[in-house]
Amino acid sequence: MPENDAGGQDIVTAALIVIGDEILSGRTRDRNIGYIAEYMTRIGIRLREVRVVGDVEDEIVDALNALRAAYDYVFTTGGIGPTHDDITAESVAKAFGVPIEIDERAVALMRERYEAKDLTETRLRMARIPQGAELIENSVSRAPGFMIGNVIVMAGVPKIMQVMLDDVAPRLRTGRKLLTRSVRVDRPEGEMAPGLAKLQEEFSDVPMGSYPFFENGRLGTNLVLRSSDEGRLEQALKALWEMLEAQGVADVARAAD
Amino acid sequence: MPENDAGGQDIVTAALIVIGDEILSGRTRDRNIGYIAEYMTRIGIRLREVRVVGDVEDEIVDALNALRAAYDYVFTTGGIGPTHDDITAESVAKAFGVPIEIDERAVALMRERYEAKDLTETRLRMARIPQGAELIENSVSRAPGFMIGNVIVMAGVPKIMQVMLDDVAPRLRTGRKLLTRSVRVDRPEGEMAPGLAKLQEEFSDVPMGSYPFFENGRLGTNLVLRSSDEGRLEQALKALWEMLEAQGVADVARAAD
Repeated sequence: MPENDAGGQDIVTAALIVIGDEILSGRTRDRNIGYIAEYMTRIGIRLREVRVVGDVEDEIVDALNALRAAYDYVFTTGGIGPTHDDITAESVAKAFGVPIEIDERAVALMRERYEAKDLTETRLRMARIPQGAELIENSVSRAPGFMIGNVIVMAGVPKIMQVMLDDVAPRLRTGRKLLTRSVRVDRPEGEMAPGLAKLQEEFSDVPMGSYPFFENGRLGTNLVLRSSDEGRLEQALKALWEMLEAQGVADVARAAD
Repeated sequence: MPENDAGGQDIVTAALIVIGDEILSGRTRDRNIGYIAEYMTRIGIRLREVRVVGDVEDEIVDALNALRAAYDYVFTTGGIGPTHDDITAESVAKAFGVPIEIDERAVALMRERYEAKDLTETRLRMARIPQGAELIENSVSRAPGFMIGNVIVMAGVPKIMQVMLDDVAPRLRTGRKLLTRSVRVDRPEGEMAPGLAKLQEEFSDVPMGSYPFFENGRLGTNLVLRSSDEGRLEQALKALWEMLEAQGVADVARAAD
């Protein structure tokens, strides 16, 4: 599946690190992974890996260093608030080996929300930015995120993460978009598997996925074709429908999102 | 935060690998991470890390080998169906360096659902189990998961993963449960941060988390105390309420789940 291979011209890759004990304990359900995955696909960046780690500096630093060497971009969510368990900015500074101090640009942004007397030492923790970073604006609550090297540091609160992503996205290099065509079949995937495997051999440049689901007590399957070449994708889709006809399941199949 | 340190008597740890291109592309929203995280906390296993990787053998094998050496258990979800893109069982066999063949115990389980003539070569792919593995029952659609060494391999379809988790859980070693007490405060976390940091110093054995949320256009905070010692937890909770009184926010605070 060449589209999935690392490298390749025009392919821009990314990883995501979700930071927070509360996700690992199950207390908070993550709502950022799916949002960021979909966003990346839409703008032409391939999300290749996600890691969820706790509020532990060594683990954050290790994940940052492993992933920023392996992918074009690394996004993080969580751990940039004012409390003692917010250690993402410090961890990023440590990973890059740069100092971290209160950043006057960040303080200026926060003044739009807070009066000088309310900019307490605690709140100013949110203005601590690793040296050399560019800020990412937060139109919801002002305390900014930042981008340093290929690492993009965002808040964990979904609404705030989302406005930060909108602010930083235009600065990112994007590549060829991965287009998809999906067909939903109300049959277990086993019924289509041999035909699909043969089709995959024939269209080795169009990765084909088969995703089972369970609905109203029955198994069904979403078949998904992926390519950045629209013409090739339509050829493969036509061949897929012929295969579904041949296997006698076209009557329980329909185009899906 | 000693509770978060690796090792320690009675602490049983785990990691989770979510396998599937469809999660990374954003096509499918993961619904297993939160469920497994909560389940682990309930039975006394500490989930320490999650990785989401694509349907790429090398990446699955690398994640398996890194995590099974670092944690007591490694769970996987996804990639054990009958289609060409289901490569989890093969990847696990490769990581352990054992052969993988059609397992007669798995075939026997599948016979409960399929007549002999319907047990096609394709469906029998789901009976391929690495040598030395114990099976995990699947009361929904029969094709089993398995456990080999400290690695537990489950389906990606949430309903099927959940029955597999119920089947395998009684076989797992569990440790001290992490108990929590939570207080919701309808104020931004910055207002409590100094008091909370001081409290955390005083109760260094009771990790305290501060989790902001955004609701109806306003920021609020969930404060969470964690310990496996119930008495100590109640002491810390009492001190937390005294701190909230002192900071003048007790009237907008309430016990939470």
